[in-house]
Amino acid sequence: MTEAEIIAYARQFDPQPFHTDPVAAEDSFFGGLAASGWHTASVTMRLMVEAIPLANGVIGAGGDLSWPAPTRAGDVLHVEATIEAIVPSRSRPGRAAVAVHCRTLNQHGEMRQEFRPRLIAWARGSEVRPVS
Amino acid sequence: MTEAEIIAYARQFDPQPFHTDPVAAEDSFFGGLAASGWHTASVTMRLMVEAIPLANGVIGAGGDLSWPAPTRAGDVLHVEATIEAIVPSRSRPGRAAVAVHCRTLNQHGEMRQEFRPRLIAWARGSEVRPVS
Repeated sequence: MTEAEIIAYARQFDPQPFHTDPVAAEDSFFGGLAASGWHTASVTMRLMVEAIPLANGVIGAGGDLSWPAPTRAGDVLHVEATIEAIVPSRSRPGRAAVAVHCRTLNQHGEMRQEFRPRLIAWARGSEVRPVS
Repeated sequence: MTEAEIIAYARQFDPQPFHTDPVAAEDSFFGGLAASGWHTASVTMRLMVEAIPLANGVIGAGGDLSWPAPTRAGDVLHVEATIEAIVPSRSRPGRAAVAVHCRTLNQHGEMRQEFRPRLIAWARGSEVRPVS
């Protein structure tokens, strides 16, 4: 994550001085430029799409999200994801809810985000019916 | 939210066909182009920054996030936020955790996101000490 990327995302979606202005950020709670948590979440999604091999896509209904510390310029993020449960749907044959624990870490192993999404997955060969 | 905005966000952060390709999206679970949930979350943050008058900024530690239905092209989003609790910190005088319930709705009142963040707030006149 570069300073320019942090500022570009924040100008569009989270325009607060501690995300957009390295000088003003020094006197803020973060004590320096910090990426928006939603930027960390967005980058995490990109890494999840590249990593989780679900045939019909990585489709989430939400989940519990936590930012123990902000991503900083120079952080190189990776995601460690553990599938904790696959619960077949009773009402929709061939469908399951997948509970995943996703930890977003920087190159020093420092946690930047924890997310526990509930993903929707389909058994091999089962039909994907649109929601609408 | 326009089709172009949905595709631009998704190409950068959530490059899956149902978020980037209106034709391919028709045969997907979503039955048509759908915004990434993280795009809805990012736009919601922008609206929250504009709406919630916290002097030291809208700073969240995370929260429970839910997408009951995706944002579609043409949706005009707004946020309805309710402050549900302000819990003063015992260990840090002048600081409090603020529990907020944020509902992101389109122009027809259809729910696109529900989020229950835990925000950090300071009493008027209290000192903001950096985390690092």
